[in-house]
Amino acid sequence: MLDALYKPKSVAIIGASTKELSIGNRIIKNLLDFGFKGSVYPINPKADEVRGIRAYNSILDVSSEIDLAHVIIPNKFVPQAVEDCGKKGVKVAIINSAGFKEIGGEGILLEEQVVKKAKEYNVRVFGPNCQGIINTNPNVRAYCNFTFTKPETGCISIIAQSGGVGEVINQRFSELDVGIRMYASNGNACDISIPEIIRYWSDDEQTRVIVVHVENLSNPKEFMEAAKETAVKKPILGMKTGRTKEGAKAVSSHTGGLAKIDIATELIFKKCGIVTFRDQEELCQAAVAFASQPIPKGKRVGIITNTGGPAIIATDELVEAGLEIPQLSNNAIKILKEKLYSAASVNNPIDVLATGGGEHFRAALDVLMNEPQIDSIFINFVTPFFVDTDMISQEIVEENKAHKKPIICNLMTDKRQWTKTINILKNGGVPCYSLPETAARALIAMTRYNDLKAREIGEVQIFNDVDREKARRIIKESKKEGGEFLPAEKVNNLLAAYNIPIAKWGLVNNSKEVLKEARKIGFPVVVKVDTKSIVHKSDVGGIALNLEEKEVESTVKDMERKFTAEKPSFFVQEFLSGGKELIIGAKAEKDLGHLILFGIGGIYVEILKDVAFGITPITALEAKEMLSSIKSYSLLSGFRGEKGVDQEKLVEILQRVSQLVTELPMVQEIDLNPIIAYENRVVVVDARIRI
Amino acid sequence: MLDALYKPKSVAIIGASTKELSIGNRIIKNLLDFGFKGSVYPINPKADEVRGIRAYNSILDVSSEIDLAHVIIPNKFVPQAVEDCGKKGVKVAIINSAGFKEIGGEGILLEEQVVKKAKEYNVRVFGPNCQGIINTNPNVRAYCNFTFTKPETGCISIIAQSGGVGEVINQRFSELDVGIRMYASNGNACDISIPEIIRYWSDDEQTRVIVVHVENLSNPKEFMEAAKETAVKKPILGMKTGRTKEGAKAVSSHTGGLAKIDIATELIFKKCGIVTFRDQEELCQAAVAFASQPIPKGKRVGIITNTGGPAIIATDELVEAGLEIPQLSNNAIKILKEKLYSAASVNNPIDVLATGGGEHFRAALDVLMNEPQIDSIFINFVTPFFVDTDMISQEIVEENKAHKKPIICNLMTDKRQWTKTINILKNGGVPCYSLPETAARALIAMTRYNDLKAREIGEVQIFNDVDREKARRIIKESKKEGGEFLPAEKVNNLLAAYNIPIAKWGLVNNSKEVLKEARKIGFPVVVKVDTKSIVHKSDVGGIALNLEEKEVESTVKDMERKFTAEKPSFFVQEFLSGGKELIIGAKAEKDLGHLILFGIGGIYVEILKDVAFGITPITALEAKEMLSSIKSYSLLSGFRGEKGVDQEKLVEILQRVSQLVTELPMVQEIDLNPIIAYENRVVVVDARIRI
Repeated sequence: MLDALYKPKSVAIIGASTKELSIGNRIIKNLLDFGFKGSVYPINPKADEVRGIRAYNSILDVSSEIDLAHVIIPNKFVPQAVEDCGKKGVKVAIINSAGFKEIGGEGILLEEQVVKKAKEYNVRVFGPNCQGIINTNPNVRAYCNFTFTKPETGCISIIAQSGGVGEVINQRFSELDVGIRMYASNGNACDISIPEIIRYWSDDEQTRVIVVHVENLSNPKEFMEAAKETAVKKPILGMKTGRTKEGAKAVSSHTGGLAKIDIATELIFKKCGIVTFRDQEELCQAAVAFASQPIPKGKRVGIITNTGGPAIIATDELVEAGLEIPQLSNNAIKILKEKLYSAASVNNPIDVLATGGGEHFRAALDVLMNEPQIDSIFINFVTPFFVDTDMISQEIVEENKAHKKPIICNLMTDKRQWTKTINILKNGGVPCYSLPETAARALIAMTRYNDLKAREIGEVQIFNDVDREKARRIIKESKKEGGEFLPAEKVNNLLAAYNIPIAKWGLVNNSKEVLKEARKIGFPVVVKVDTKSIVHKSDVGGIALNLEEKEVESTVKDMERKFTAEKPSFFVQEFLSGGKELIIGAKAEKDLGHLILFGIGGIYVEILKDVAFGITPITALEAKEMLSSIKSYSLLSGFRGEKGVDQEKLVEILQRVSQLVTELPMVQEIDLNPIIAYENRVVVVDARIRI
Repeated sequence: MLDALYKPKSVAIIGASTKELSIGNRIIKNLLDFGFKGSVYPINPKADEVRGIRAYNSILDVSSEIDLAHVIIPNKFVPQAVEDCGKKGVKVAIINSAGFKEIGGEGILLEEQVVKKAKEYNVRVFGPNCQGIINTNPNVRAYCNFTFTKPETGCISIIAQSGGVGEVINQRFSELDVGIRMYASNGNACDISIPEIIRYWSDDEQTRVIVVHVENLSNPKEFMEAAKETAVKKPILGMKTGRTKEGAKAVSSHTGGLAKIDIATELIFKKCGIVTFRDQEELCQAAVAFASQPIPKGKRVGIITNTGGPAIIATDELVEAGLEIPQLSNNAIKILKEKLYSAASVNNPIDVLATGGGEHFRAALDVLMNEPQIDSIFINFVTPFFVDTDMISQEIVEENKAHKKPIICNLMTDKRQWTKTINILKNGGVPCYSLPETAARALIAMTRYNDLKAREIGEVQIFNDVDREKARRIIKESKKEGGEFLPAEKVNNLLAAYNIPIAKWGLVNNSKEVLKEARKIGFPVVVKVDTKSIVHKSDVGGIALNLEEKEVESTVKDMERKFTAEKPSFFVQEFLSGGKELIIGAKAEKDLGHLILFGIGGIYVEILKDVAFGITPITALEAKEMLSSIKSYSLLSGFRGEKGVDQEKLVEILQRVSQLVTELPMVQEIDLNPIIAYENRVVVVDARIRI
């Protein structure tokens, strides 16, 4: 697929330069310094050679085949260069040059020209306005990039939308002495996209972990598909930056206000099974563990320690993240009692004591590896001067060879003195950390990945009792009539078409019929004047709540007097009291579908922002998770003897709303607010639909 | 004060050993390796010399003066060793030996003996069951400790309750190439305490930052006093570990359940002005900045960057923590336009571009140093190969010399290649970080310290309109009568004595008088049967709410019939409706005073745990902060046209409750629940006091 990009046999540099401090020179230097296994062809009409390599006037002058070309010339010449590449049969062009979409105006047109030429001449484009790629594969050694950090060979692949962020992550791995596999920063991404690269790495066996940084997703659906398929095969660690602009915006009770694109990216990550990070350090440290260790099958951690305080910190961190430190079996305790010092602590955490040696660590490791209720092992290893710490390292490495359960090691030592102890662990593939929190978080991330993988979100249920024809007709009519918002009657009919339960209602043309309609519905009722000219009905006395039979006629007469000019119709509705006020909404998200929201109404939305989001279409499990993830969930499930609400029905309504917006993508926004939920009934009281 | 401990001219090792891998040998090795400037006297009756130094039979055989003695002998011999130290005139004994309070039983008695002997012979004791101290002062070089990490000289001093945690922190600074000043881990702390050491460092000019780790505070009041006095002079960075045991306990609506000792430590830290951390990495990285930079005077950050993505991350991090990135003045923008490249971004964040050189960074720094609306400077510095990055470093160092505003640098480079650039910054005292988040958090911590310092919590207001005599009498009587909880009448009288407003009430002996009393109070009323034998009155029909005049007599008659055997009195109370339900409580905390709690009642406490805590006595500012720190504060301040409540009155009640428990420390628990608050009135409806 992208072999010509990542495993080029030959690279041309269009814009090769003899100036030491230019990108057109630096890329050649990087290729040479990194030991590129293929051929390099500088293209420069004014020079005979660049860095001692013969230069060509034009790429068309090169007689050999060229897989990959860097383009580092002023923007306006780039379309021609792409054409030349096509003519020469170049498979991929990395366009490092800037001055395209990112500058707007002419740049956009220029980028369109590049794309057109590339299609015409069958050249794939990476960039423009980008860094490039790196492949550390010893048979390739491609450093097609103008940055400067030279990674070791490893099995972490990095793709970053921001070149700066990508390079910082690359540097951090380098500092941590951890190798990488491949690297990509594709700038404007006019052709070769992040999803395509993820798919490529999905099939690359040597890539064990993928690190993804995004600022915004230009093609969320494609990204989701690629990431979802890949994340079941290997972990993807994701980070989204640029949160605060959105975060600063005030949150209102309307779906539109609550659902930010920022939330969308986090939801996409979750839906794909990407392990999400908010911190590059945490991401990099976790990647180190992912790169060498098997994935834990559950959240039960066995801890081995030879010191107290740091074990407490590790426990705090693990337990706060929902991991468990289970008790050991009687048999395990029996073995530990035999093999450890008498003062040792023989339950989880196992304290082998500062005086514990290799055989004690080994015994504890053996026990934890064999305990069925332990999924992962956390070692707290301080290096006292009075024990043979090299031996301890060796025993840990021996246990690690089986790759049975993940081992994470918090190694507390002086790196200047205990180099041998450290190197044994490092060469034995045991991930080591300097602090208990850092080590614990790496293990937490691995456990989160397992949770995401194990989570069976199920299939999206399609309700076939819905009347799609009717729903489409309603929307078509509304479109004809103009106006963004559907009138109340149409809203109710549309919800009814999707079997979303609404409070009993009726619409009558004149005041005389209100009472008759109210009797049909049952008392008490709500009466609203229905006229297009009045938006805020309650402000002008256009709504009357909780009317008993005897009150209806006089109230309606009053209303009629007030609104006589508008010749209003009257909307009569069942009045509901008690129950819990809830809110469900959905909002179209560009190139993605809809974000769907659930929350408890009133103050919970307004003040506490206690809402949960999903991306449509949602499955029953996702709907259930939305319910249970709000902070005030016990209001739904019942607490202190108070009864809960019909959650099954709520889950169904969420799924039906999801189906509605999925089947009717022209719906821009839907707000069911409030929904009143009782123990045995859930009913929409008011709704708004924008198309 | 502690000079003999930290600046000993001579150190004896009681229990010096010829065995290489023993602590009694290691401490001597450490002293020698670290270049101790004083004399070392091994005490060992069986050896002539230890590590080439003449050994003595007994400390009493040494003819020179001895300031400090290590004691590393079996626990039962320690009291005698302390006596010997006394006889010899040793000023401080570091007792490394274990087997004291921490093992319970005999160990406790043994520790008491040690303390007694030490007092008798005027020897100060550090430990027992401890590591010891380090002083990097070039004139002292005391490594009186058996650990192994040898710190560089610096200005961070570390005190850790857990030796393991202390050593890990020491190691982390060593890894970060940052020096420390002094170190202490005093184990059981039977004499020389953490507060005493903090006070000593408070006066040590070379200590610029103090790092404190605690697991639990044995003497919170002393700690608070020492920390408070010190924190106004220099930053104290604090970390408390061992959170989850408490965290796991279910939280109930009662103050007792909500107020955990864990919360107490965090409150103590806050009250003292300690900058609190939950993560050692964050703490250590922040300490690096504190060690060299002036404290920012406010939260307004100027950012200089030469790359995009990492600047976004820094901005996210800073803004999410409440810091600001203000616009620059017109004059500043004008200067930047003149001095930077035309494509540079001349507002905050200032992007000098990747091609920006030393002069551009200098221009941007000059501008930010002179902008009055900028308090601190964050530099995002990637090292492109095509600019003179050494020059950039030099310009940053030049600006840093003035120590006018703090400079924090996120230096994105390959440490193996850009060593000169890095060293210029390092030697110039500019704190450098590898990731924007890490750098941002260090700056955030410094800004938090400034906030804590600038926060004028004011004096505790004493209300002199209270009737202390009456209050004491009530409690005395209740004690005589026995019973943990005060009866309702006494509760009300006690609150009244402190002028805490309660709902109008009366107590009558028989049913006949209820109506009369109710008329006095005004309708509607609440009537409760008042009898000691019935605890849960509402379960058995002993409470009637919202009674109008006509309902009173029949209701009371019904009650009387039900409870005829108990010959009840009747408690008549004003019935309050509407308003906001609030809760205030206080609970005695051992060795500390009381924790005081404020929250919104009902579901906010039960489900959302939306409460705030303080330590008594609280000032008006602290009470105000308690109000405003709850998540649903807008319920109090009013939102969407709904009126708020009388916050001034609430603040006063909080202060009065604080005064009550301070003046009546025998009150174990007080719960005002609910309090009903209106726009112009706040009134306690029900209360419970436990003594």
